[in-house]
Amino acid sequence: MEEKEISRAVIKRLPRYYRYLGELLDNGVERISSNELSDRMQVTASQIRQDLNNFGGFGQQGYGYNVKYLYHEIGKILGLDKTYNVIIVGAGNLGQALANYVRFEKRGFRVIGMFDVNTQLIGKKVRGIEIRMLDELMPFLAENDIQIATLTLPKSAAEEVAVKLVEGGVKAIWNFAHTDLNLPEDVVVENVHLSESLMQLSYNLTSRQREKHKK
Amino acid sequence: MEEKEISRAVIKRLPRYYRYLGELLDNGVERISSNELSDRMQVTASQIRQDLNNFGGFGQQGYGYNVKYLYHEIGKILGLDKTYNVIIVGAGNLGQALANYVRFEKRGFRVIGMFDVNTQLIGKKVRGIEIRMLDELMPFLAENDIQIATLTLPKSAAEEVAVKLVEGGVKAIWNFAHTDLNLPEDVVVENVHLSESLMQLSYNLTSRQREKHKK
Repeated sequence: MEEKEISRAVIKRLPRYYRYLGELLDNGVERISSNELSDRMQVTASQIRQDLNNFGGFGQQGYGYNVKYLYHEIGKILGLDKTYNVIIVGAGNLGQALANYVRFEKRGFRVIGMFDVNTQLIGKKVRGIEIRMLDELMPFLAENDIQIATLTLPKSAAEEVAVKLVEGGVKAIWNFAHTDLNLPEDVVVENVHLSESLMQLSYNLTSRQREKHKK
Repeated sequence: MEEKEISRAVIKRLPRYYRYLGELLDNGVERISSNELSDRMQVTASQIRQDLNNFGGFGQQGYGYNVKYLYHEIGKILGLDKTYNVIIVGAGNLGQALANYVRFEKRGFRVIGMFDVNTQLIGKKVRGIEIRMLDELMPFLAENDIQIATLTLPKSAAEEVAVKLVEGGVKAIWNFAHTDLNLPEDVVVENVHLSESLMQLSYNLTSRQREKHKK
């Protein structure tokens, strides 16, 4: 496949293409035109063609896309053709919820360790994964090749733990703590700030109501 | 305050301003210049000035921003000066995790009902909130003024439940189900697609490694 700079906006749309193509595949659809995909995804057909052309174009004019091929190619671009060893630091409700997502494992994200500071969780297992105390983190990182760490802990502890994770060789952090992590540039951080998402919702709800009152 | 069209990009940055200003407030900081705020937030000072000018500008040249005032004004823009009645549909791990976030309640998002189809959850309470069965949803909506519904259920059930919620008068949905909801235009939907976030992470991790190998 051709290698070129792909814009962040395109990359952001890829998981959604991947999801729709996966559903088509599940439904036994073998080929789809950009127009049909456009109807389903509520994105313009020209946007779809443009986006997919970034990767050399997977379709032929008037012939449509091979769903299975496109699904797998996008999967490869997204790095889903590999498996990742994942740990979860913070084994509260959210950490346990994430550990329970079987779907992540199917996509290649294998949770192999969970950590917390709450001694009441010692020995507890979530989907077979033992919850360890945080003082076992560094030896665990030394013994296991961990690519991704999920941070589901209070923001007061997040930065300190993140620094340790990076020392231990972790190169990617999925951060649910409500803080921005200042880490070396070669560490990938993906933030999920739930309260910011909730604020977007209340902003949109409020501004719709303001519009309504104006009418 | 002046009312004008504010770009989506600006709106997306507001919760982050709100968070930083809240932290400054907690630390007793009364005034801050756009340069100081810029250092902390790693956004350019001119970006900050430009963003805040959208709301009439809260600062005076050479004098900085009044932290408390700015915090409250941004809060108002985000709709955080009101309280919202929230229900959670899907009382599994993730739903329970969200119900347990005391911080949401502090911001005015009061969870007053939880629903599930799992009969094992009947009578269970999370932070004092009773888990009800889904067949009680419509009467509950009729009796209570619910502004926001959180969907933390499998995607197979999400659309059907969302339609019911809208019938019941809910105007905003915080959607964690891994599907796009097709709802009337006046319903606000905010999606949290966790697996898409994880795919962004694996994309970034993979592309960094590709770059490394090239060097």
